[in-house]
Amino acid sequence: MRAPLLALLAAAPAIAADDVRPAVRAWRQANETQVLRELAEFIAIPNLASDAVNIRKNAEHASAMLARRGVTTRLLETPGSPPAVYGELKVRGARRTLMVYAHFDGQPVDPAAWATPPWTPTLRSGTLDDKALIVDLAALAQPIGPEWRLYGRSASDDKAPIVAAMAALDALKQAKVAPSVNLKFFLEGEEEAGSEHLRAMLEAHRDLLAADLWLLCDGPVHQTRKPQVYFGVRGVMGVELTLYGPARALHSGHYGNWAPNPAVELAQLLASLRDAEGRILIKGFGDDVRPLSVAEREALRSVPPVEDELKAALALGRTEGEGASLPELILRPALNVRGVSSGKVGEAAANAVPTEAQASIDFRLVPDQTPEGVRSKLEAHLRGLGYHVAHETPDAGTRRAHPRLVKLEWGPGYKAARTALDHPAALALVRVLEGGAEPIIKLPTLGGSVPMHLFGDVTGAPVVGLPIVNHDNNQHAANENVRIQNLWDGIEAFAVVFAGLEQAWPARR
Amino acid sequence: MRAPLLALLAAAPAIAADDVRPAVRAWRQANETQVLRELAEFIAIPNLASDAVNIRKNAEHASAMLARRGVTTRLLETPGSPPAVYGELKVRGARRTLMVYAHFDGQPVDPAAWATPPWTPTLRSGTLDDKALIVDLAALAQPIGPEWRLYGRSASDDKAPIVAAMAALDALKQAKVAPSVNLKFFLEGEEEAGSEHLRAMLEAHRDLLAADLWLLCDGPVHQTRKPQVYFGVRGVMGVELTLYGPARALHSGHYGNWAPNPAVELAQLLASLRDAEGRILIKGFGDDVRPLSVAEREALRSVPPVEDELKAALALGRTEGEGASLPELILRPALNVRGVSSGKVGEAAANAVPTEAQASIDFRLVPDQTPEGVRSKLEAHLRGLGYHVAHETPDAGTRRAHPRLVKLEWGPGYKAARTALDHPAALALVRVLEGGAEPIIKLPTLGGSVPMHLFGDVTGAPVVGLPIVNHDNNQHAANENVRIQNLWDGIEAFAVVFAGLEQAWPARR
Repeated sequence: MRAPLLALLAAAPAIAADDVRPAVRAWRQANETQVLRELAEFIAIPNLASDAVNIRKNAEHASAMLARRGVTTRLLETPGSPPAVYGELKVRGARRTLMVYAHFDGQPVDPAAWATPPWTPTLRSGTLDDKALIVDLAALAQPIGPEWRLYGRSASDDKAPIVAAMAALDALKQAKVAPSVNLKFFLEGEEEAGSEHLRAMLEAHRDLLAADLWLLCDGPVHQTRKPQVYFGVRGVMGVELTLYGPARALHSGHYGNWAPNPAVELAQLLASLRDAEGRILIKGFGDDVRPLSVAEREALRSVPPVEDELKAALALGRTEGEGASLPELILRPALNVRGVSSGKVGEAAANAVPTEAQASIDFRLVPDQTPEGVRSKLEAHLRGLGYHVAHETPDAGTRRAHPRLVKLEWGPGYKAARTALDHPAALALVRVLEGGAEPIIKLPTLGGSVPMHLFGDVTGAPVVGLPIVNHDNNQHAANENVRIQNLWDGIEAFAVVFAGLEQAWPARR
Repeated sequence: MRAPLLALLAAAPAIAADDVRPAVRAWRQANETQVLRELAEFIAIPNLASDAVNIRKNAEHASAMLARRGVTTRLLETPGSPPAVYGELKVRGARRTLMVYAHFDGQPVDPAAWATPPWTPTLRSGTLDDKALIVDLAALAQPIGPEWRLYGRSASDDKAPIVAAMAALDALKQAKVAPSVNLKFFLEGEEEAGSEHLRAMLEAHRDLLAADLWLLCDGPVHQTRKPQVYFGVRGVMGVELTLYGPARALHSGHYGNWAPNPAVELAQLLASLRDAEGRILIKGFGDDVRPLSVAEREALRSVPPVEDELKAALALGRTEGEGASLPELILRPALNVRGVSSGKVGEAAANAVPTEAQASIDFRLVPDQTPEGVRSKLEAHLRGLGYHVAHETPDAGTRRAHPRLVKLEWGPGYKAARTALDHPAALALVRVLEGGAEPIIKLPTLGGSVPMHLFGDVTGAPVVGLPIVNHDNNQHAANENVRIQNLWDGIEAFAVVFAGLEQAWPARR
């Protein structure tokens, strides 16, 4: 067993702030294989929040990783939820406390769409798109290239940041640099499943989770690969819609003009919800949207344009939003159709009127929208179209009684959050990360969602996002990956924040 | 080996026309199990037109069934097509020739949706919906109930009519009644796959296939279970549409307002094609539609209404067509969306912008529309919406070059057909079937499609449909079945037509 990190650090003289980054880099260059293997071991544990046995294994594994760095850990349990991992590293003399948040659960997988199985971490000497070869991580005999990728579910989202933070602690220890702040860790196990129990967990452990600043490690760096911090996230809300046709599939010739076709009805319903530019057509949907502040508009102008490269890489012939920039567009609410299904297409298509049509939608919310508001506005919109809205599967009598009938199954959701760009903690974090060199990108909000609002609501602390992974990581899709250089850069980012935050943001004594 | 039927019949005295039906019924009552087993054996042979080995087995099996009745048979072959079965039974003294058409191939199957495997013929003592028990056909120890059902792909569409016609020959032979007309059989093996080679086959064998009347045995009897004949069918045309989103699935939070969503675009496209009442919105789509004749309008009034019972049975809260009757609606062209697919729904849904969206559509055509007209009008409509229409999978360059891009894959199709209701052959057929008793239903057109137009176009003969199977047969869908009483009624219908047609429609000598 190793001696606790703190005991060693307190006894050793600190190196100068400017020397932290080179020292951490030197440590990393000497320990790349070890860091990568630690990440691969973590990815190899299947991590759907609904898979109770494996998600607990993830929590125990993360807890053990923290403990190896001298962090005091415990699992936080709430009925019906995967355990969360809490960790605490007190630093002698530190007056500020920094909370590091990440999640270890991952999005559902469609194994057939993966080139290698989602929970078999696979190192490639480049990208899958470029047909890069697989490199055996267990028998690595060559230097690891910065453009290599490690593939696996949650390679980026969020296991890489967790491993990078661990490596940052190892590197600081080697450099004999104590963190400047007390460190806390809160690692969640059901973020991708909607964080249904997060509020209860935060409220139950309000004192334990008190901190001066929450650092969220979810999300990617900028598409230019430049580092960025973000001050907000969008909220999220999901709904499954089902429309009903005839009780049994009908021959489309004999009944095709007579029996209502649920796939056609679904098309008409979806077309009524938003237009081709992404504008949401649901009545009053934008009423709750908080206007942008002057500082947010100013920050927007500092974000480099990436749209042309992205359009080319994604083979897009157009974008939505009538020419507005990507950072500007994600400050608006969004309605995404994540799937539609009815009958069969292609070889399996039969000349029949389908019995049902389904659509799956996710909404992205901005301040000050609420999930309740989204729900009531969509349901009012559908009622306005003549729909009877059911929340359970309707029986034959209900189907006969309603010319227009939709079943809605709402998933858990949460609202957006945004920290003011001129909060002292935010300004200090930016100063430390910039270290007097290049300005980093300050994004008013990330397009994605983490339940950031809860941290602020419950703990009262400011919350800022420090993402480290590559933007082209196939997050949430098949063949998720992390680019190796992003992992290395992430280690340095965490190390300079841990080492320098309190000096940049002194607490009054 | 049996002696040929003809040799026996010519030597025996015929019974009176009015006695044919009772004699056939008596034979059937004594031979029910045998008839049912013959149908089950036929259903047990998988019959997708694309399954070359099995579809040939079907052809050989049907040919052997005919040969057992003394019918001279041969397989008609056309390159690239399953074989068709031709049969001929010359009757001494007969001057008219009746052609019996049916098909032995079936629609694609989704085995997961079937209660018992599609090619495992399964007898039940009632309907699956009523949870009727399975009865072992191999060890049948009880009388077969008229409401029992035999389940399996093509149980109704079209293997039951083929077996019923064979049983009719057996029954007439037993009753020592010779057919009044020369009989020909033409059994097709790719009807459900679009009859791509039918024209070539008919043209190649024009002389062999000459007849005074073609009798089509496809389609169901009326929903009231009353017998009907039909004088037309709708044409059919299928197309697969694919729309393209980003080249890889994108996180819907980070890119959700910016990357075009192909599922949303598909909804908008489909909504532009037809309205909720079934009206096709494609410009000029109805221009070619031939107005109804006075006789057709008159016949429509004789069709009993079934809409209320059907709505209840199908749990429908509404129907399309603004209150028009079902027989009236199927005289119009139809656009049916047989399937849509994009991303994932339900448990598998991930918060991503899908890369593609697909829809599968079948069109039903009426006289005088053509498949070429449908194709050019849909493509013009899509171009009018700003789409670039591709017929091959577009590469990245093509995708980047076109803000709106759709791939269309057209299936083979054919036009509609309609025989005049007052053609002498049609009038004679109706007289024989009515036999001085109840009027039968005369339907100007069936909603479904068989390539009826080809028979008329190539052979010049009138074509009338004599369906025998139940309307609630799940044709084209899972759990296809035939109701036993329909099979029995079908045997009698074929027998009276075979025995009496020439007397009702004497040829000039």
